[in-house]
Amino acid sequence: MKAATAPARLSLNQETIRQWSVPELVAGCAAAGVGAVGLWRDPVREFGVRKTAKLVSGAGLRVSSLCRGGFFTAADPAGRAAALRDNRRAVEEAAELGAEVLVLVSGGLPAGDRDLVGARHRIVDVLGDLTPWAARFGVRLGIEPLHPMFAADRCVVSTLGQALDIAERFPADRVGVVADSYHLWWDERLPADLRRAGRGGRLVSVQVADWVTPLPEGVLLGRGQLGDGCVDLRGFRELADACGYRGPVEVEIFHPGLWARDGSEVLREVVDRYRRHVE
Amino acid sequence: MKAATAPARLSLNQETIRQWSVPELVAGCAAAGVGAVGLWRDPVREFGVRKTAKLVSGAGLRVSSLCRGGFFTAADPAGRAAALRDNRRAVEEAAELGAEVLVLVSGGLPAGDRDLVGARHRIVDVLGDLTPWAARFGVRLGIEPLHPMFAADRCVVSTLGQALDIAERFPADRVGVVADSYHLWWDERLPADLRRAGRGGRLVSVQVADWVTPLPEGVLLGRGQLGDGCVDLRGFRELADACGYRGPVEVEIFHPGLWARDGSEVLREVVDRYRRHVE
Repeated sequence: MKAATAPARLSLNQETIRQWSVPELVAGCAAAGVGAVGLWRDPVREFGVRKTAKLVSGAGLRVSSLCRGGFFTAADPAGRAAALRDNRRAVEEAAELGAEVLVLVSGGLPAGDRDLVGARHRIVDVLGDLTPWAARFGVRLGIEPLHPMFAADRCVVSTLGQALDIAERFPADRVGVVADSYHLWWDERLPADLRRAGRGGRLVSVQVADWVTPLPEGVLLGRGQLGDGCVDLRGFRELADACGYRGPVEVEIFHPGLWARDGSEVLREVVDRYRRHVE
Repeated sequence: MKAATAPARLSLNQETIRQWSVPELVAGCAAAGVGAVGLWRDPVREFGVRKTAKLVSGAGLRVSSLCRGGFFTAADPAGRAAALRDNRRAVEEAAELGAEVLVLVSGGLPAGDRDLVGARHRIVDVLGDLTPWAARFGVRLGIEPLHPMFAADRCVVSTLGQALDIAERFPADRVGVVADSYHLWWDERLPADLRRAGRGGRLVSVQVADWVTPLPEGVLLGRGQLGDGCVDLRGFRELADACGYRGPVEVEIFHPGLWARDGSEVLREVVDRYRRHVE
């Protein structure tokens, strides 16, 4: 039997089917003909970074991204030093995995802090120390803006424009931006910001998930399967392409409903939805 | 006993203490020395618009706003006509109550619709029909941007800049914008947009609530009491003032925890928090 072939640019983010172990992920993608995966640090470290790298490359899978470094907004020197240490490890892991991008989520406001501007400045500061390390390991960093509903507790970088403002302080071959439809779909400046990212060679990763309501408590695990929500996903992907993006399109959905199902069945659905709503 | 005196610019939005009837609201504000209220259409209509107007003006209370009109994004002619009818009634109610502003929440995407740009255009279209009606009744309309997490199901106008883009198509004495800290605090363009609003005489209402996490399911009822969250409320109010705003500062918090308590106790807390975090 000929193996199935998924759309060439589709990448499966590991967290979409988090019920799979690393070997199941690799086998599942191979069986479905999916050519790339986005990995997460915790499950990869648990299984072993070297073992994961070997398994993934042995199966001919690209690693479209490693999620994630970041959390740079600590105001105290000890917190800042810890963040830098952890991010250097993340860079090394990304290098070992051959990940095309290390995704960075900036971090939210420290407890009791109300100074968004200050927190955004501290991101630039830590990146100044991290970027040479990334260069040494040949790793590209991708700043991911998260939806403004995460500004307080997770990511003070809320728009692609803000992510570019930070990225553009560093060389384009080292620091780019990640565009995820779930976080950015509402922003009317998105087309202009994607063009800006494309012109500067800064668009290093594209991710897709749909927006569905009502949002669940805590709002983290409410992403929708492709086509279930109100995001013009094909328009989003076409816009990225028109701005020069040629890389993988990573499906990253955090949803307990998907995690409760059989992984292969979820992946078949993802591939089908991708064809209908993204490709 | 001398009546208490609350800060001169503090206005209590009715929904903050929704457990109060209209007479309780009027008596409670009088007892606390609060000089202005923001009203909501449903409880006012239930009690009677004329009766409410009489009670409120008899107590010497200003009506800082009437919440709310809007929901202009229906794509079908019948839906559009219904929205216009309802908003004309809202204008008449605002006039009868002597409300300084009729707050407009634009509406979200119709079911199955993925066209944000189209929905935003339809708002302008309906406003074109509503504005002469507002002029006839001497009512000022205020377009309120809601947080981007409401873009799908409640309000496709997500930033003060977008609200101004719409408002500026109409005369400044008819259509302005409403700046609520809860919806806008994350936006780094807020200072520039507030200045733009101030220059154009468009800033017609300022509201405050704090941002607290985790957000509850549905995210509507998760606003924080002043000082409980991460918003620099004083900075927000000072910024509005620096842009020329001199009107009431309306405390609008939707939170079941406040609704479960004694209304007078909640109002005392609101006044105290306002002094400490806003005034």
